[in-house]
Amino acid sequence: MPRYRLTVAYDGTEFHGWQRQRGPDGAPLRTVQLALQAAVRRVAHEEVEVAGASRTDAGVHARGQVAAFTSSAELPLGRLPAALTSRLPHDVKVTAAALASDSFSPSAEALAKGYSYRIVHGCRLASQRPLFGRQYTAWTPYRLDAVAMNLAARALLGRHDFTSFARLHHGRESAVRTVHECMVRAAGRRRCVLEIAGDGFLYNMVRIIAGTLIEVGRGKIEPRRVEEILAARDRNAAGPTAPAQGLCLEWVRYG
Amino acid sequence: MPRYRLTVAYDGTEFHGWQRQRGPDGAPLRTVQLALQAAVRRVAHEEVEVAGASRTDAGVHARGQVAAFTSSAELPLGRLPAALTSRLPHDVKVTAAALASDSFSPSAEALAKGYSYRIVHGCRLASQRPLFGRQYTAWTPYRLDAVAMNLAARALLGRHDFTSFARLHHGRESAVRTVHECMVRAAGRRRCVLEIAGDGFLYNMVRIIAGTLIEVGRGKIEPRRVEEILAARDRNAAGPTAPAQGLCLEWVRYG
Repeated sequence: MPRYRLTVAYDGTEFHGWQRQRGPDGAPLRTVQLALQAAVRRVAHEEVEVAGASRTDAGVHARGQVAAFTSSAELPLGRLPAALTSRLPHDVKVTAAALASDSFSPSAEALAKGYSYRIVHGCRLASQRPLFGRQYTAWTPYRLDAVAMNLAARALLGRHDFTSFARLHHGRESAVRTVHECMVRAAGRRRCVLEIAGDGFLYNMVRIIAGTLIEVGRGKIEPRRVEEILAARDRNAAGPTAPAQGLCLEWVRYG
Repeated sequence: MPRYRLTVAYDGTEFHGWQRQRGPDGAPLRTVQLALQAAVRRVAHEEVEVAGASRTDAGVHARGQVAAFTSSAELPLGRLPAALTSRLPHDVKVTAAALASDSFSPSAEALAKGYSYRIVHGCRLASQRPLFGRQYTAWTPYRLDAVAMNLAARALLGRHDFTSFARLHHGRESAVRTVHECMVRAAGRRRCVLEIAGDGFLYNMVRIIAGTLIEVGRGKIEPRRVEEILAARDRNAAGPTAPAQGLCLEWVRYG
């Protein structure tokens, strides 16, 4: 049976994240996985399991999530993105479709993932907070120094134990990951963007890195202290977890 | 008693427009006017009536709506925008505050208003429709020719009877208005923006102009036909009313 690989974009604002789950009352929550499975069911006329590369949290966005499913149906690849998108709610779309190997696993086979984290800063007054597009960015009352943040970000490059930057009980055997790209750039006078890529990320890792870099940007943590924070292997050494809405899964790369 | 003038920005997506109104069940709907009145009440500690320059429809946005209210309270102007915004929902903010004359009417005294209308075009496939920021733009399956649209837009400049571009029963004695600025510019390969300013606009006028220019852009109406449409003084001569979410009240000018 053919296995299909999809590239999926979504506005995470109104989703309880990627992964199918039930609420306290036992009813299924609105998740991207559930929405995709329903759309595939309508196109393939059979029940399928859709797997994803990254279990994004509630409120986290994606431009380049990768998903896969197996179906006995021969689906026309060229028309598949539009056919699925027209059966999806207005906040998810499928941007590409391809055939994959029978055993393709979007999460296990990912060689690298890239995320962005957007911040509007210097919002000391309520009236300075973002309005249009506020769903796609975090904000902070403090003025941030993007140069200091970028200096700190560089210290995270390479292969490290990222225990300090993962939620406690992250559920992985090893916290060692390789970060290939980690930079902060100013995007206008009051915006900055963290761009980070690596071979894998622990639970909440990008949001804790963003939260720590915000502390650096406002002058509460010196850039050179990031090495010590890494070495501590202690979640309490790093800054707070930055909010979900600034985060976007930009791409996933395979061999 | 001092009269205060406010500049107000809002994301109209989740509002039933500017003006206070009740739903079919008699309950007040979520409107910008109602939200502002509640915020002013909490700051001024008294009930006030907030008047607006433009009665924007449900889904229409504003960057520069102007509002006014009279209160016996002496409110500190410098802190008023933040004080009100912190008491407003996340989709409205007050960006400026000033004192106005006792009788200031934001609608009657407006000398000119400026609107923008944003369109994403060439979305033939569902997967090409806008995702992030879809709340702030209209979209059309057709490829639009912004140059033809701009040519047609120029024909609307000046003083004309805009009956053809107003909703039937628009409720005004005269449909004569002066358009000072009317241009369409491409903003990237698949976006275009209509910028229009004038001494006043009839009900749905900008949206009907946008809808007509979209017909021009896709080649269904020739640019030179816009003069005939104006001369017809007949709503049926113009194109359809373009959707609310592309429209934004950018500014209001006073003497």
